[in-house]
Amino acid sequence: MANPTAAMLVIGDEILSGRTRDANMHYLAGELTKHGIDLNEVRIVSDDASAIEAAVKALSGSYDNVFTSGGIGPTHDDITADCIARAFGAHIDVRDDARALLQAHYDKSGLKLNEARLRMARIPDGAVLIDNPVSTAPGFTIGNVHVMAGVPSVFQAMVASVLPKLTGGSPLLSQTLRVDRGEGDIAATLASLADAYDDLSIGCYPFQINGAFGANVVIRGAEGTRIDAAMTQLAKELDL
Amino acid sequence: MANPTAAMLVIGDEILSGRTRDANMHYLAGELTKHGIDLNEVRIVSDDASAIEAAVKALSGSYDNVFTSGGIGPTHDDITADCIARAFGAHIDVRDDARALLQAHYDKSGLKLNEARLRMARIPDGAVLIDNPVSTAPGFTIGNVHVMAGVPSVFQAMVASVLPKLTGGSPLLSQTLRVDRGEGDIAATLASLADAYDDLSIGCYPFQINGAFGANVVIRGAEGTRIDAAMTQLAKELDL
Repeated sequence: MANPTAAMLVIGDEILSGRTRDANMHYLAGELTKHGIDLNEVRIVSDDASAIEAAVKALSGSYDNVFTSGGIGPTHDDITADCIARAFGAHIDVRDDARALLQAHYDKSGLKLNEARLRMARIPDGAVLIDNPVSTAPGFTIGNVHVMAGVPSVFQAMVASVLPKLTGGSPLLSQTLRVDRGEGDIAATLASLADAYDDLSIGCYPFQINGAFGANVVIRGAEGTRIDAAMTQLAKELDL
Repeated sequence: MANPTAAMLVIGDEILSGRTRDANMHYLAGELTKHGIDLNEVRIVSDDASAIEAAVKALSGSYDNVFTSGGIGPTHDDITADCIARAFGAHIDVRDDARALLQAHYDKSGLKLNEARLRMARIPDGAVLIDNPVSTAPGFTIGNVHVMAGVPSVFQAMVASVLPKLTGGSPLLSQTLRVDRGEGDIAATLASLADAYDDLSIGCYPFQINGAFGANVVIRGAEGTRIDAAMTQLAKELDL
């Protein structure tokens, strides 16, 4: 049976302007691979309401799961929750359960739950809160979309809250063989191997060290015995 | 006048599986910002022909420039050039100009220009070659799409070949103010500042160091005097 599919939507001007290098995509990719969910597409859009709404609709309709990152803080440019609500045609306002979490958090820290911070309690009707053990302000799941923070430590904690609840598939297994020859030398061998093992994905990633060409051949699939067989055949054909 | 727009398409299973952390997006974002081209969207798709073709069509129709990264090497999983040709309805085959470049390169290095390496001379009719000073195999521009390699050193060299030929706009300028207070404390001030300076983009990026909350406020725009004015007003309102 095929694994469940997923897409990710990263929201933030700071990524697209080159100010910040996104870290959440690479983290999520690794976690999904372990959990047996295939990440098939990522989109990065700016803090623009119509761009966010259009991307959420497109991805939500095409994949089993969508994970978003960014835009759920207390400032004017944090518009993700409202855009997601609109994409689902859901009503959104400050919700009592989220407000209670924030109230308890700010009472404890002696800060005021002011109007800006209350923005973080805006949750669409029907959404399920995602726990935030780092800084309390929750994410949420609506339909097949999981809405999470952009700050990496919070994003990672939210992924840890969400992933165990999702149906996973077979973890993607992989083996890598380093070949100290140029890609062009081994391409024909790889192509016929890919034909013979069409249940596996065979990738070739070239490198150059001190002027010498080489490539890492990565074979991925759900069944370890098949990967073993393909690797053995590859090594034999390359006289390794 | 508004700056020209751009999108990027990153192609590669290795990014989506979490094996490799993409570096080209962050690099391109910084270069485009300097050149006055606004990067509005990024998509990452796997080595899947229909996904690549659909993404190229969508992005090419929506933005002034599209930059792709990955999938133009000699192996069976390098299918980008053929997908781009299909997206543009262009004929593609080994082209004499590209073959001549490769032939000279491999003659010099004493390697054979075999069938696999010849794949890298597959260029759509009507496309203009992009110079590759690192490893010779060229990229190409067709319509508003610039097709480049995934290996970061080659990608960067190709960006350097392409960018000077493109119409730029005003470089995006920015100033950053570090505020040692929680985002929620300064959000109201930022919101009214954003209203007053609607030609600028005002972003707020929270951090936490040794348990203390703070935020970097970044003001971006095309006119330095406007950014100066907004920063001065912000500092005043926050008593800094």
